Amino acid sequence: MSLKLGVIGTGAIGQDHIRRCSQTLLNSQVVAVTDINLEQAAKVVADLQIAAEVYPHGHALINSPQVEAVLVTSWGPSHEEFVLAAIAAGKPVFCEKPLAVTADGCRKIVEAELAHGKRLVQVGFMRPYDEGYRALKRVIDSGQIGEPLMLHCAHRNPRVGENYKTDMAITDTLIHELDVLRWLLNDDYVSVQVVFPRKTSKALAHLRDPQIVLLETAKGTRIDVEVFVNCQYGYDIQCEVVGETGIARLPEPSQVQLRSEAKLSNAILMDWKDRFIGAYDVELQAFIDGVRVGQVGGPSAWDGYAAAVAADACIEAQGSGQIVKIGLAPRPHFYD
Amino acid sequence: MSLKLGVIGTGAIGQDHIRRCSQTLLNSQVVAVTDINLEQAAKVVADLQIAAEVYPHGHALINSPQVEAVLVTSWGPSHEEFVLAAIAAGKPVFCEKPLAVTADGCRKIVEAELAHGKRLVQVGFMRPYDEGYRALKRVIDSGQIGEPLMLHCAHRNPRVGENYKTDMAITDTLIHELDVLRWLLNDDYVSVQVVFPRKTSKALAHLRDPQIVLLETAKGTRIDVEVFVNCQYGYDIQCEVVGETGIARLPEPSQVQLRSEAKLSNAILMDWKDRFIGAYDVELQAFIDGVRVGQVGGPSAWDGYAAAVAADACIEAQGSGQIVKIGLAPRPHFYD
Amino acid sequence: MSLKLGVIGTGAIGQDHIRRCSQTLLNSQVVAVTDINLEQAAKVVADLQIAAEVYPHGHALINSPQVEAVLVTSWGPSHEEFVLAAIAAGKPVFCEKPLAVTADGCRKIVEAELAHGKRLVQVGFMRPYDEGYRALKRVIDSGQIGEPLMLHCAHRNPRVGENYKTDMAITDTLIHELDVLRWLLNDDYVSVQVVFPRKTSKALAHLRDPQIVLLETAKGTRIDVEVFVNCQYGYDIQCEVVGETGIARLPEPSQVQLRSEAKLSNAILMDWKDRFIGAYDVELQAFIDGVRVGQVGGPSAWDGYAAAVAADACIEAQGSGQIVKIGLAPRPHFYD
Amino acid sequence: MSLKLGVIGTGAIGQDHIRRCSQTLLNSQVVAVTDINLEQAAKVVADLQIAAEVYPHGHALINSPQVEAVLVTSWGPSHEEFVLAAIAAGKPVFCEKPLAVTADGCRKIVEAELAHGKRLVQVGFMRPYDEGYRALKRVIDSGQIGEPLMLHCAHRNPRVGENYKTDMAITDTLIHELDVLRWLLNDDYVSVQVVFPRKTSKALAHLRDPQIVLLETAKGTRIDVEVFVNCQYGYDIQCEVVGETGIARLPEPSQVQLRSEAKLSNAILMDWKDRFIGAYDVELQAFIDGVRVGQVGGPSAWDGYAAAVAADACIEAQGSGQIVKIGLAPRPHFYD
Repeated sequence: MSLKLGVIGTGAIGQDHIRRCSQTLLNSQVVAVTDINLEQAAKVVADLQIAAEVYPHGHALINSPQVEAVLVTSWGPSHEEFVLAAIAAGKPVFCEKPLAVTADGCRKIVEAELAHGKRLVQVGFMRPYDEGYRALKRVIDSGQIGEPLMLHCAHRNPRVGENYKTDMAITDTLIHELDVLRWLLNDDYVSVQVVFPRKTSKALAHLRDPQIVLLETAKGTRIDVEVFVNCQYGYDIQCEVVGETGIARLPEPSQVQLRSEAKLSNAILMDWKDRFIGAYDVELQAFIDGVRVGQVGGPSAWDGYAAAVAADACIEAQGSGQIVKIGLAPRPHFYD
Repeated sequence: MSLKLGVIGTGAIGQDHIRRCSQTLLNSQVVAVTDINLEQAAKVVADLQIAAEVYPHGHALINSPQVEAVLVTSWGPSHEEFVLAAIAAGKPVFCEKPLAVTADGCRKIVEAELAHGKRLVQVGFMRPYDEGYRALKRVIDSGQIGEPLMLHCAHRNPRVGENYKTDMAITDTLIHELDVLRWLLNDDYVSVQVVFPRKTSKALAHLRDPQIVLLETAKGTRIDVEVFVNCQYGYDIQCEVVGETGIARLPEPSQVQLRSEAKLSNAILMDWKDRFIGAYDVELQAFIDGVRVGQVGGPSAWDGYAAAVAADACIEAQGSGQIVKIGLAPRPHFYD
Repeated sequence: MSLKLGVIGTGAIGQDHIRRCSQTLLNSQVVAVTDINLEQAAKVVADLQIAAEVYPHGHALINSPQVEAVLVTSWGPSHEEFVLAAIAAGKPVFCEKPLAVTADGCRKIVEAELAHGKRLVQVGFMRPYDEGYRALKRVIDSGQIGEPLMLHCAHRNPRVGENYKTDMAITDTLIHELDVLRWLLNDDYVSVQVVFPRKTSKALAHLRDPQIVLLETAKGTRIDVEVFVNCQYGYDIQCEVVGETGIARLPEPSQVQLRSEAKLSNAILMDWKDRFIGAYDVELQAFIDGVRVGQVGGPSAWDGYAAAVAADACIEAQGSGQIVKIGLAPRPHFYD
Repeated sequence: MSLKLGVIGTGAIGQDHIRRCSQTLLNSQVVAVTDINLEQAAKVVADLQIAAEVYPHGHALINSPQVEAVLVTSWGPSHEEFVLAAIAAGKPVFCEKPLAVTADGCRKIVEAELAHGKRLVQVGFMRPYDEGYRALKRVIDSGQIGEPLMLHCAHRNPRVGENYKTDMAITDTLIHELDVLRWLLNDDYVSVQVVFPRKTSKALAHLRDPQIVLLETAKGTRIDVEVFVNCQYGYDIQCEVVGETGIARLPEPSQVQLRSEAKLSNAILMDWKDRFIGAYDVELQAFIDGVRVGQVGGPSAWDGYAAAVAADACIEAQGSGQIVKIGLAPRPHFYD
């Protein structure tokens, strides 16, 4: 039997997930949608030709007996409210990042889930579902390179628009590394420092770009992440793990090798949407499969909370130029 | 509604496809199976926990009103009979390679399908569904490297068992290149020559290994394929297309790059099953999707016939050492 | 003490060698030059500001007591005469390729050298002095890839001029592979076949381009060399040795890796002169060092003869389309 | 005429340079040597079979009319004295790193050279003579990647011995980056910070390894250098320059590519001596050529001073964990 999903928020990412659940994934169907703009919600249902009811608001959708699990893809500031409502209704909920716009908000969700006594929440961090990161984790976990000591990472975009502000380098860009590197290392961050190199002339006046974020983990591993969102040449994600006996590097996306015009070359992607497109499918299928067998997995509310705490510290470090502690509460055994 | 499939042959590949259609692919269910060994067929149904009826023989399965489309995964020599029966029943049929064990058998299938007046047959050549080959074809079709003039290919296995004979280098190994290169180039073979290099000491006494197959196409493109089935080091598929203005090369499978033990290295697969595993899913999903919309596509009966004619010529060339013509009948417009 | 060299032929390659011996190499000086155009020879001496006497002709230069060793860099058809004269004078001689324009001419030189009783001749094949080929040979000789079974090679130029004819693909282009692959494999050719792929539209009307040359060696190793002299994209030399247990590939020239304009790329050279520039220095220094210790080494008159015999067979194979035997006389122990 | 060299210090590096100047380089001869151990100096002369006089001490050698230029390859603490003496004698001097063991010592040499009025000193930093770094500099200077914003570097050794202390990561290891990166960027350092990742279990108890050195330049470029001297897997030098529009990376040493034992691999060097061996020749030849035409170039006394100032700050930063300013005096125009 297909899992009956309700989707709150029918913007770009919501539409993507609705189409994914309706056309690409196994054992799922979207039976309910809602949006702050109900006309648009109705239009999405019509355009995608799905048999889904349009609900007047998120709470009605969550509490509908038709809906077995909820996807929250609405405006970030509304996530906390809907996730808490889903937990209150005892329904599994997949929430796009951020889980909540504040660490406190995330904490409340963690506590609600703890009180419920069983995992209901999966946060929409897709990189742990990327085949490249998974292969990298297998190498680390195999012991082939010994204990990880340092990570050298980069997150580069060709360019960003006017509404991209300096702190979005953390909340919109680095946030993916904040999540995936904890998972990759099975470790937590304890401090962060941000340094600002010479600014690229390609960035708009209000934006400090590039930035280098220096993280330290509980085990002492040091991570440097270059965030460079006007690098011009491509959307490029790099992750190199330096271990005691060797170094492992995230695979480049597979490409045809060309000899042409005095160059031996492989294409670099320009659009971020192409980079992790497969991971979105795997991530959401995992949620669906998890719900169907009664075991929600993947990035947890705790992971969402940890990313939020780290992000707050990063933003403080952007402002102060100092080394900022990252003080995570002790992890409840529930999330082990 | 799911497509109701009947599967003839529950050996290794049959089981794989049953599991695939039952658990991995969209909109399909296996409702009927049969095998020359009915007990084994029943065991497969039980093991995979699927709701499929065991039929006494292939013809009963094909003609069952429960069955909407047929998968032929039985012993090669039985393919022709079952495919012809499916056509006679007007049912779409996916047939594992070979379509028939003789070119004449393939030709009969082509004629039956022509008489039926609509495509029903998809042959199980999976490489055209591999993302690497598809990317390579996009590059060729884009004109980036100009007209293709030469292809340098290799098909290497770590080792083969005792029952692998010299002609199986054609029928079991090269057969994949014979299919995929026609598709890649949108061209037909006109002649073939086989040369035997110095034999590797790693091959058993009865086997000539490696072999080099030199093909010529109607457009004059020259293809060399190294077939080396005891190469020891890995399962390695190479395809380099030399065009008028550049060269495009099939991507290597994506791997973590390691610096370790005085080597900068990427793993090479050892098991052929890992190499095209994704392509099997795409291939069979394409069949299911095609049947559901009434348009069977992919490798056609004509493609199966063309591969069989080419393979026969290759085997003759192995024996004679001469350049052997590949005389394909003119292609009916039906298959354009 | 510097070795006193006389140079016959002050065209482009002669000038290069004169400059090399005067300015770059150790322990050599050019004391004598001549050319069919004596004014030009005098101009070269003046331009390079060297203290060299201009001799009226090659024989006078060879026989001058001032000259300890001879470099023959004159027009190809004159090589045989000057090399024979140097042998007659008992003087070491470095001769640019070809050693002679016919295999018979080469044979005469071999016989003269045999009669003299000691090696005097080094032929100007520079690839065995290239660090890449030497590294490749070390890998083969180490046994890491087992016995070589097949070689896949390519010799590509961006483009050629109007005076480049179809047979020059052998005598000017393939000739380098004919020499270096014998050395690499320590083996001799026994047959050759030439096939002509679809012609590139970038070649002039009179030229068949590309060509594929298929060589067989005495040990049974099969070699395919793609010769493609209007490939547009670069000067590109490829050599892949397939052994019983692994494959070794000639290094690409070392280049800065760039991420730029949606490409991960390394430059490919466009000018053949840049590709083996270091090898010319090493080759000539080896000659100078060899002469000074009384042991001329490197490509021998026999190697020049073997290349000429193979080239003749290749040209015959171009014309006939047949497999042509390469019948080399037995190698005298003198050349072991 | 050959340049007559006197060499002070006949230890390992001294012997290397003597052999280089006697056997490999053009236009140089070693006519004088000395060492704190005169017997050893005599033995070196005898072993290398060179016609050099053994002088009782460095000052006698420097002042000998036989000696036209001096090579200082003695114990580090003695460099300053001998370089000053050579300047006093008006003789060109090539001094192995460090120019002096203190920044003050370097400063005195700078002032002596300024007083002399003409460059006499070349410091033995060889990386600017490495073909890879030169190619990288050409790419940067070409503007292909825009202005450099960040450098990601690594300096890794397989392992170090017991006498290697934590500060030697700066004075013996990082010192090469301190020199070559200033040259590469044509920029000066203004601050440094050192962070210590989790220590590798492969390092001895007294040594903090790895370390990450974070440098800031006058133009605002940020440099991170991983120094990891027990990385086990190889001697590996990495340098990636992130510019406004692209990224350029130091070439890997050229190696045969192998497909073997389930790996596609290129060898990584294990011995640092193999990595820059060619650069030592070019460096010393440049000194010899420079002296002969009256124009000493290459790394100057000022560069030696700048490296010493930066190294002092790095060591302070190792101890304090703080960001330490690098306060270089203004550069005299003499060194422009």
